[in-house]
Amino acid sequence: MKQRGVDSQKIIRRKQDGQLEYLPDDLTIEEPLEIRIGRKVLATTMRTPGHDEELAAGFLVSEAIVRARHEIAEISADRDNRVIVDLKKGLKLKLNSAKRFGTISSSCGLCGKTSIDAIRQNFSAIESANVRVDIETLLSLPEKLRKTQNDFARTGGIHAAGIFDVDGELKIAREDIGRHNAVDKAIGRAFLDGSVPLDRHFLLVSGRASFEIVQKALAAGIPVVAAVSAPSTLAVSFARETNQTLIGFLRPPSFNIYAHVERVILR
Amino acid sequence: MKQRGVDSQKIIRRKQDGQLEYLPDDLTIEEPLEIRIGRKVLATTMRTPGHDEELAAGFLVSEAIVRARHEIAEISADRDNRVIVDLKKGLKLKLNSAKRFGTISSSCGLCGKTSIDAIRQNFSAIESANVRVDIETLLSLPEKLRKTQNDFARTGGIHAAGIFDVDGELKIAREDIGRHNAVDKAIGRAFLDGSVPLDRHFLLVSGRASFEIVQKALAAGIPVVAAVSAPSTLAVSFARETNQTLIGFLRPPSFNIYAHVERVILR
Repeated sequence: MKQRGVDSQKIIRRKQDGQLEYLPDDLTIEEPLEIRIGRKVLATTMRTPGHDEELAAGFLVSEAIVRARHEIAEISADRDNRVIVDLKKGLKLKLNSAKRFGTISSSCGLCGKTSIDAIRQNFSAIESANVRVDIETLLSLPEKLRKTQNDFARTGGIHAAGIFDVDGELKIAREDIGRHNAVDKAIGRAFLDGSVPLDRHFLLVSGRASFEIVQKALAAGIPVVAAVSAPSTLAVSFARETNQTLIGFLRPPSFNIYAHVERVILR
Repeated sequence: MKQRGVDSQKIIRRKQDGQLEYLPDDLTIEEPLEIRIGRKVLATTMRTPGHDEELAAGFLVSEAIVRARHEIAEISADRDNRVIVDLKKGLKLKLNSAKRFGTISSSCGLCGKTSIDAIRQNFSAIESANVRVDIETLLSLPEKLRKTQNDFARTGGIHAAGIFDVDGELKIAREDIGRHNAVDKAIGRAFLDGSVPLDRHFLLVSGRASFEIVQKALAAGIPVVAAVSAPSTLAVSFARETNQTLIGFLRPPSFNIYAHVERVILR
């Protein structure tokens, strides 16, 4: 059975014993997706095909182009790697200098702002500190996300993002060759379902936490962000500013807390 | 001693035994860099500080904005995360729709093209097949690159790119939180030294090989690209088109050949 997001190619492998073999190898699919608002091309992103409407919706949320579900009148993907979004009538798309997007590689989610000042998006900091997570729940998240991934994904060729509720139940899981796309797809699904802001939810990413991951979580109102690998300095300083809890190296039984420890019930 | 590209932050760690400790943790620095042509902001990229002029030069090469060393009259980095490039007098910067750049995240090198058609840059395929690499040389590359990295980098928090000559000697090694930046820095160094096209060199990246990595190698004329992890489908199909040899999972004694095996001396 062909796996989604995977393509098989004939390759030559040099094995451990030095012998060569010709065999099929599973590769993660990377293809461009064009996101259009009406006839205008907003951005082109390199992504793994699948859940393209969600990816587009999540991108629009992350970039503050839409803030409420009803602002998207229609969203549809065609077979030519394009998603066309129609905004609600009367909603003007204001693309200022901070909102001109170009092509976004499979590991890029921040493309489009032309000045350093514009990088920090205009989202308010998370308000409530009343969502809390206990250690047992936190430690249970990575395995729940991994279980949704297929064997190929578990080898690390593809990134995953999961959105969990306060009880640690996995609500949405998405995969992509780019981690920012996996996050956009998960947030986009929640947005299309009318569930944003996700102020009583946690985000887990399978890899590292860069600035853009924390910023996307903020756009969706997510107060707790956890990553299986390291955060960057900017991810940490941004989370501290925006009142987001940031966990890194979440590898049971260990983890690190980089920002806003008060949401973690440590006993 | 403070390591370059690394910042220490106080964090809370939950240890294996469940105990908590407060300790400093080394984080990879991620900061924005603005690349200007004269007064015009060309792009903002999220990168690890250091070798910023090289990063800017490599970016310009990758995007076909400059093709020869003399086309850059001056290039200088200031302390405000900016590189200012002055092009040779008379050299018009033609920024068509395919060359409007925005902000580039720490893992993005392809930002800026606004249509799918424009993604494939206008570089000719590699011509000569007369550069060849034997298995012993190929297998020796990862360890040579790793030796240049410090302890922190070896843990995987930062990407590395190395340019080797045909004898397998490491000529340039660069690190960055974004793999495309590491490649831009390495290629930028070679370009500033007047060594591009690197038609008798190999490129090794410490992580995965996406389309953009192979495309950057093509821009610098590099015929052989090797990656420690997996390539994407688009990286493979692009390398096949552009006559570049693509090696993946280069983990001695094993490796996979995805494109143009004829440059690898298999016995």
